[in-house]
Amino acid sequence: MTIRVGIVGATGYAGEALFDILLRHPSAAITGVYSRSGDRRAFSELFPRFKGRTGVICSPLDVKKIVNDSDAVFLSLPHTVSMELVPHLVKAGKKVIDLSADYRLRDPAVYRRFYKIKHKDAGNIKRAVYGLPELYRAKIKTAGLIANPGCYPTAAILALFPLLALGAAEHSPLIIDAKSGASGAGKNPSGDMMFSEVHDDFRAYKVNCHQHAPEITQELTRVSGKKTGVIFVPHLLPLTRGILETIYLRSLPGQKRSTGSLVTLYKKFYKTEPFVRIKDAGSFPRLKETAGTNFCDIGIQADGADIIVISAIDNLIKGAAGQAVQNFNIMYGFPETTALL
Amino acid sequence: MTIRVGIVGATGYAGEALFDILLRHPSAAITGVYSRSGDRRAFSELFPRFKGRTGVICSPLDVKKIVNDSDAVFLSLPHTVSMELVPHLVKAGKKVIDLSADYRLRDPAVYRRFYKIKHKDAGNIKRAVYGLPELYRAKIKTAGLIANPGCYPTAAILALFPLLALGAAEHSPLIIDAKSGASGAGKNPSGDMMFSEVHDDFRAYKVNCHQHAPEITQELTRVSGKKTGVIFVPHLLPLTRGILETIYLRSLPGQKRSTGSLVTLYKKFYKTEPFVRIKDAGSFPRLKETAGTNFCDIGIQADGADIIVISAIDNLIKGAAGQAVQNFNIMYGFPETTALL
Amino acid sequence: MTIRVGIVGATGYAGEALFDILLRHPSAAITGVYSRSGDRRAFSELFPRFKGRTGVICSPLDVKKIVNDSDAVFLSLPHTVSMELVPHLVKAGKKVIDLSADYRLRDPAVYRRFYKIKHKDAGNIKRAVYGLPELYRAKIKTAGLIANPGCYPTAAILALFPLLALGAAEHSPLIIDAKSGASGAGKNPSGDMMFSEVHDDFRAYKVNCHQHAPEITQELTRVSGKKTGVIFVPHLLPLTRGILETIYLRSLPGQKRSTGSLVTLYKKFYKTEPFVRIKDAGSFPRLKETAGTNFCDIGIQADGADIIVISAIDNLIKGAAGQAVQNFNIMYGFPETTALL
Amino acid sequence: MTIRVGIVGATGYAGEALFDILLRHPSAAITGVYSRSGDRRAFSELFPRFKGRTGVICSPLDVKKIVNDSDAVFLSLPHTVSMELVPHLVKAGKKVIDLSADYRLRDPAVYRRFYKIKHKDAGNIKRAVYGLPELYRAKIKTAGLIANPGCYPTAAILALFPLLALGAAEHSPLIIDAKSGASGAGKNPSGDMMFSEVHDDFRAYKVNCHQHAPEITQELTRVSGKKTGVIFVPHLLPLTRGILETIYLRSLPGQKRSTGSLVTLYKKFYKTEPFVRIKDAGSFPRLKETAGTNFCDIGIQADGADIIVISAIDNLIKGAAGQAVQNFNIMYGFPETTALL
Repeated sequence: MTIRVGIVGATGYAGEALFDILLRHPSAAITGVYSRSGDRRAFSELFPRFKGRTGVICSPLDVKKIVNDSDAVFLSLPHTVSMELVPHLVKAGKKVIDLSADYRLRDPAVYRRFYKIKHKDAGNIKRAVYGLPELYRAKIKTAGLIANPGCYPTAAILALFPLLALGAAEHSPLIIDAKSGASGAGKNPSGDMMFSEVHDDFRAYKVNCHQHAPEITQELTRVSGKKTGVIFVPHLLPLTRGILETIYLRSLPGQKRSTGSLVTLYKKFYKTEPFVRIKDAGSFPRLKETAGTNFCDIGIQADGADIIVISAIDNLIKGAAGQAVQNFNIMYGFPETTALL
Repeated sequence: MTIRVGIVGATGYAGEALFDILLRHPSAAITGVYSRSGDRRAFSELFPRFKGRTGVICSPLDVKKIVNDSDAVFLSLPHTVSMELVPHLVKAGKKVIDLSADYRLRDPAVYRRFYKIKHKDAGNIKRAVYGLPELYRAKIKTAGLIANPGCYPTAAILALFPLLALGAAEHSPLIIDAKSGASGAGKNPSGDMMFSEVHDDFRAYKVNCHQHAPEITQELTRVSGKKTGVIFVPHLLPLTRGILETIYLRSLPGQKRSTGSLVTLYKKFYKTEPFVRIKDAGSFPRLKETAGTNFCDIGIQADGADIIVISAIDNLIKGAAGQAVQNFNIMYGFPETTALL
Repeated sequence: MTIRVGIVGATGYAGEALFDILLRHPSAAITGVYSRSGDRRAFSELFPRFKGRTGVICSPLDVKKIVNDSDAVFLSLPHTVSMELVPHLVKAGKKVIDLSADYRLRDPAVYRRFYKIKHKDAGNIKRAVYGLPELYRAKIKTAGLIANPGCYPTAAILALFPLLALGAAEHSPLIIDAKSGASGAGKNPSGDMMFSEVHDDFRAYKVNCHQHAPEITQELTRVSGKKTGVIFVPHLLPLTRGILETIYLRSLPGQKRSTGSLVTLYKKFYKTEPFVRIKDAGSFPRLKETAGTNFCDIGIQADGADIIVISAIDNLIKGAAGQAVQNFNIMYGFPETTALL
Repeated sequence: MTIRVGIVGATGYAGEALFDILLRHPSAAITGVYSRSGDRRAFSELFPRFKGRTGVICSPLDVKKIVNDSDAVFLSLPHTVSMELVPHLVKAGKKVIDLSADYRLRDPAVYRRFYKIKHKDAGNIKRAVYGLPELYRAKIKTAGLIANPGCYPTAAILALFPLLALGAAEHSPLIIDAKSGASGAGKNPSGDMMFSEVHDDFRAYKVNCHQHAPEITQELTRVSGKKTGVIFVPHLLPLTRGILETIYLRSLPGQKRSTGSLVTLYKKFYKTEPFVRIKDAGSFPRLKETAGTNFCDIGIQADGADIIVISAIDNLIKGAAGQAVQNFNIMYGFPETTALL
């Protein structure tokens, strides 16, 4: 069985990564690549690294054509643009995997507060499944619309899921000190993201006001049943790909655990997960070990009541395109690691 | 008045920075550069960037010669080596500024635990003044032996000093998420610090077991009179120079403060300090803005009871060589910013 | 058909890349990974990024075991070590692909001059086929021993092959200004290759005395039938992967060609090559477009009698591991791009 | 004597470097900083790294005010903008040091060809002195208008000056393979110069059509009295500061020289120059050794008739702001190294 897939908005970094992965997918045929700019240019002209590997031509963003030519559609569009398109695709019965933030937050009021715009397709929010397979694999199988998780939330939620789901730590405040490479900021030129500004620099930004914070608390609250609160400080690393988060929390009063027991707990918890790897005690993730992969690596340490969890992913793979394809594989019953190992 | 200064161990990064600064100092004459290797080579051969600026020749490490030729001696040696030399220099009445860790910890048992060796000159520890001018300027003026602070502690203590000295926040746990450039690891070749291992990578190391943690708690406990406890997680940045620390703590119960009032408090507290700069509310330090300078930049934000303090320094300047010269200026009554602006 | 492959010396960067590619090869089974250190450690412990993807254990370097367990053997060893092993493997009838320099130079005296050691297996040099598929595909098909080309020579020879093979340019001096990422220097710790020394730096090294120069002239002389002479200056780039060479030569007297005609000539010449891509006139290779791929990208420009050719490869892929697997595919009749696209 | 200096266009990288140097100049007082944007903002707000060091406020670009407040004016403006301002300043008798390209090319037709605009102040071109002290120190002393050299030409001309002035090498083609850091491209946001595009990349650009080529040939032709021709290929390095040029040329027929004799010749030639350093035979410049300095480092090697010269500078210092201050020092009779060592 070959699924005809369309990629809408393939000219950004996540779209490029998506194209790269789907090109290697034995059961997916890229039948269309659509960009808002509307240029009819060879995709390999936009991204010369694909020259000799594909003859696909970019098309203008035409809903009819997308509907006609695709079984599944990946949307790699800026937030607020996705929600213009999704209703049409859902209505036409297409499987939609949306990499934007538009269907992640279940409360339109929260969306409005953080994305500064009223949601235009609130009706479909309930229909959307939050596409983190480790939490929602069963629902993803039958979903028609996937809200593919944000990069920071993926690393944070996977790091905290075992402790909070098992009620083994306090829910607030969870201190998340996050560091991301520059590709997370996208391709649009901006003075802040010029080479000479980012190279040899390191800085915090959107200190405790980043739009990924409510996504993290929403999901952690759902899995744990208790309201969680995060302090979330993202920083910009002088490298292109990767997110590492160092998370500080505390065990419940009177329930201290050793590092060893926590490592064991995590290993057991994620035992059957193909893309979560738990480091042995005393060992911690490095960006280099996840770069270019769909893995999330996690290290844990306890010091008295204090617990430190460190997680790392490639923001464009497990934090975007790889996870999208993982969801695609689950939706169509393909082996979950197809094209991802 | 010209002070004859000797630099012992000038072949590392801190020693190189020290030489660079002292060369520009109008009241210091570098009368000797001493290295343990004992090679008699032109300093500009070891560091070609100084060619055309100095004719100094490296000498073997000979105590008599150092004593004869110097009024003040900077020791830029590995810890455990400094304490072999210091007793002789102190005895000879030289002013000594030691950049190693040997005289920073007041309790030899703590030294032993963290540096894995028994202290050999415990007698001089009491005599040593911890060379953080913002805390101990008065004592530095008359000191004979300066324990120049560690790089991580400098950024941490300056960030926390106002809050803890004023009793305006809880003392434990202070969560310090620290990030340092690679020059902090020194020049000795090691597989971990090779270009291809550090470039494009980011990782935590010595998670909550770094030897700078007791230095931080010692000093914060002294200034606040209350036992402080830190969780200290250092990380390695893919850049050469700079330390940025993101620190999380909580206000005292019932004493929440706004970001604005905290910024005001910090600005007032450090009003007369020539090398501490407080960012306006909503603005935070960047490594680029402190690189190559002796400044420590600090930003603060409060969110409810949670307080976030971010500080940045150049680890080789304010975190080592610059601070050493600042101490030197204070000891000799030179304007404190001499050769440092 | 599944070929049992052994990788000898997989602990370096080229070996790591080789493992990565062969793991994805549908017709290759990695039956052994051998290291000189002799440690019996999980390969995924040496390279944590392979955790969850392989259970292979490193074995000590034992010729009998290698012979028993492998059909084809990849040697990713330092030069001078390969030639100790090759005679035994060749004798046992194994297909050998040697990534070291030991069998590349056809004249043992030249080998001795550049590698400072007498060749110990001169008899097998004649048997070895220089594994550049674009030049020697037919011979590679039936070869028992492949001398996999050096990284710099791969980029240089592919850039110059059309012009020299067609007698369309002067043969001397060919000026090759080469720039390589740091992974080319291998994993052994050295002061020169520490992060703080390479980052923010750029320098020439082995100016016109690099051991890859005779490899380039040997092959260009063979394809053209005329003695060629190169001036070869390699430089070290502050990045991990990639080689870009800017080559300056002159057309034959009275035979100037336009940029357009040269581009056409190159495109025609390499028309059937799966891994050589010629840029359109006015466009030139970028390292980013070849990084992680087995492609060699080439751009050409003529200005009067002066010709500029720029080529780029990933030094660990087309310059080492990828080319090795390309040769393997040819030797066994697999589609040449298997595991390489 | 204190000279009142104005900096026009201080918001770019060269302007920032200029401000940094002039701030340390004991005989210069920065009496005005002018920007085209017209914002009246504290300079330390635009460049927070100067906070605590200056209280200067940016002014709109007002010729009268500049004339009133300055004795000497540094123009750090884009080309084509300088020539609008220069006539007014020259007329008012100000000493003008122009860092743009507007007065470097002596032939307005060449200017027009390379900068795509007709020169508007051709009359002052003859009056301008090309501000390379090593060539024109005597004229600079009495000049009213300095055309401060381009960054690439500075490194190229200093590297070739001895050989060509002495008639010791062929004049054409001089092959200049140049590599520059990203700060050379300025601060204006552009897709090409975003961090994620430059980091881990290396590429040639403006292959043999860069506007600095005619500046190089003009000056080399003047010093040698013979028409020189260059092939000039610039490349973009993934670092912020520095230019390294690898230059290939040939000795005159029958006049081969050894590396040793060339090194001696260069050392003698530049013996009295405070900012040119010649490497010993077998040793070559590194960007790290010139970064942050006003030095130009040069290495030379001869192989038969082929000569390789490698030069390195900091593009913002010796290639722009440092050289401008060196010219300023010469014009006012200050020691030439003032504020530059």
